[in-house]
Amino acid sequence: MLIERVRLAHKSRPVDLLVQDGLIAQIQPAGVIDPAAAVREEGAGALALPGMVDAHCHVDKTLWGRSWVPHSAGPALGDRIANGERGRAEFGLPSRDSVYALLGQMAAAGTTLARTHTDVDPEIGLRGLKLVAAVAEELADVIDVEQVAFPQGGLLTRPGTAELLESALQQGLVGCLGGIDPAALERDSVRHLDLIFGLAKTYGTRIDIHLHERGTLGAHTMELIIERVLRHGLEGRVAISHGVAIIDVDQAQSERISQGLAEARISLLTATVYNTPVLPIAELRGRGVNIGAGNDGVRDHWGPYGNGDMLDRTFHLAYRNGYRTDEQIAVAFDVAVSGGAVALGREPARIEPGAPADLFLIDAASIGEAVSARTPRRLVLKRGKVVARHGNPLRKG
Amino acid sequence: MLIERVRLAHKSRPVDLLVQDGLIAQIQPAGVIDPAAAVREEGAGALALPGMVDAHCHVDKTLWGRSWVPHSAGPALGDRIANGERGRAEFGLPSRDSVYALLGQMAAAGTTLARTHTDVDPEIGLRGLKLVAAVAEELADVIDVEQVAFPQGGLLTRPGTAELLESALQQGLVGCLGGIDPAALERDSVRHLDLIFGLAKTYGTRIDIHLHERGTLGAHTMELIIERVLRHGLEGRVAISHGVAIIDVDQAQSERISQGLAEARISLLTATVYNTPVLPIAELRGRGVNIGAGNDGVRDHWGPYGNGDMLDRTFHLAYRNGYRTDEQIAVAFDVAVSGGAVALGREPARIEPGAPADLFLIDAASIGEAVSARTPRRLVLKRGKVVARHGNPLRKG
Repeated sequence: MLIERVRLAHKSRPVDLLVQDGLIAQIQPAGVIDPAAAVREEGAGALALPGMVDAHCHVDKTLWGRSWVPHSAGPALGDRIANGERGRAEFGLPSRDSVYALLGQMAAAGTTLARTHTDVDPEIGLRGLKLVAAVAEELADVIDVEQVAFPQGGLLTRPGTAELLESALQQGLVGCLGGIDPAALERDSVRHLDLIFGLAKTYGTRIDIHLHERGTLGAHTMELIIERVLRHGLEGRVAISHGVAIIDVDQAQSERISQGLAEARISLLTATVYNTPVLPIAELRGRGVNIGAGNDGVRDHWGPYGNGDMLDRTFHLAYRNGYRTDEQIAVAFDVAVSGGAVALGREPARIEPGAPADLFLIDAASIGEAVSARTPRRLVLKRGKVVARHGNPLRKG
Repeated sequence: MLIERVRLAHKSRPVDLLVQDGLIAQIQPAGVIDPAAAVREEGAGALALPGMVDAHCHVDKTLWGRSWVPHSAGPALGDRIANGERGRAEFGLPSRDSVYALLGQMAAAGTTLARTHTDVDPEIGLRGLKLVAAVAEELADVIDVEQVAFPQGGLLTRPGTAELLESALQQGLVGCLGGIDPAALERDSVRHLDLIFGLAKTYGTRIDIHLHERGTLGAHTMELIIERVLRHGLEGRVAISHGVAIIDVDQAQSERISQGLAEARISLLTATVYNTPVLPIAELRGRGVNIGAGNDGVRDHWGPYGNGDMLDRTFHLAYRNGYRTDEQIAVAFDVAVSGGAVALGREPARIEPGAPADLFLIDAASIGEAVSARTPRRLVLKRGKVVARHGNPLRKG
């Protein structure tokens, strides 16, 4: 396939991209490559950008594609957990159709890789993991999906959950193990973390821990995580999701924790939802901390917002950070591309010869305009195949 | 005109709206009104919502409709003021075409009334006011536009500006006088405010003061404004734009100021841009303070973001407040409708017999869904005339 007349970020001249065997085979000034037998796609001067990574989502919970469900949970974390579990039964969640629709929509917005946290608890067992795995298999040539076995309702506080998680790992259902608020929810951070690190070590999986804990409590939990990563030699295999405690504490502690995260190669994954404090990504990256981003919940029993678009998420990250220049906005976009990939232990998508053709086209002069306007993506390619046009998935499933 | 089969917020049955002479003449269950000679518009079950008010924007500064201009200002307020003035010369601002395009886009998103702050200073004189007035005249049947004569660069600190403002008032160019940061920028809050209140009193205009001042300084300036409103009997004629100081100070002072604002019927106009603290609108309304909302700058030399869509602005207001239920989100929407109208001394748009047909249709089950999804508006009516379809202005000017 020859994608004609696109522009690359930070370059002014239009180029043609030759895509072969799922890879970007050549990039040449427009008109140079002889198209011969290739299928042509007219780029029309659109910007070609690398596929984005949704490094933190919950597709098992979504009501996407259904008619509107007014939000009904109370304001506390516990209310939302309970509301989510009630809603599962009432709305038949997770639902194959909603998961399919949301993953398809995420892909149509230019996301080519997603890490999704799937609930595991004694009520739902491994059913959610299996359902999401089956949908991911259906969409294997549209989007890469990695699941985290996630003890949403607690691990220590919900007897039977640890056994289910171990069973998921034994069966090879997931390559990543989740955790959640080891102190605030689980009431025993050391035992929660030791259990997770023990399982991950035994089964060779990665770790991704939800950490909503704020202030010095959250910062202390981060320290406990850093200690365990270094002790078990799990550098580069652990992520902390949310983790805004790093900016709650004083500058000295914040810098010490940043240093620890950098040394242990622990990624921070941020969603920047609602009024959650925004991570100062340029500053944290400057301290050597890798940061990825994700949409978190999309239209589910936790909240009525979201659309699965990682450019929208990049917008929130850039906007709330007050980033106005193209260069600043490009840093936020890089979080959604390279940052997410590094967190998941993958090669970041790149528009360069030899790289997989995971990319999208958008009518914009620069990454700054792409993030500001977020117009529907003209074309999305996953491993060299067209998966969406003008913001719509090709396969509606 | 008969608008067939629409739904009203909080009602489940579809209705038909009969529009005559610019007013909503009748609302009846679908099929009851005999259409006879009326032009029919198929509502297809869309939600009919009242026209929104952009109570704080700066259309004179916009680059809307042009190719992308990367942001170039430094980080401080002074940098942005200077950058804006440099940009005026470089890009020929204000530009009739950009102002026209933005106002048309705002209308196409369902905004039927806008208050825009137009720069007045010795360099540009009254040229901006006259240009915006001319464009507003062109668009008189599309959107109502009210201008504020705005001393962006300072009033005391920029000699000649006060005389220009008075000249604008004498000529009847505007019905509202602006001010800006009486202490932080102008260095003499009493003299700045006395000058503005004096002019407003003399010429019978309203007042709308930009107040970026934070903390106890901003709170003190709010007190000075309240004192002057009460002293001059200008209750209900004054607004403070931004004014987040009200939530910077302690609860007791915050409540005292709220009481003062309520007594003096001073409206707060919020834009909720970037990471500015979000006003707790439900709480402030509960204290009797009227609140409106606006987009502030849209793609200008102050920042590269924005699209003029008041549903987007409502989203930020609801989202940053953590409002999740339909009822909570409806409060944020009411800020964008009634709150803005009250601030500007107008009747709020309403979908009811006898009210002007200022309304829009959107495919959504509820205000909650409308704000969450923000799909293009199916139809927009201004005084009973169709001005936009599917998010696009009918007149491209």
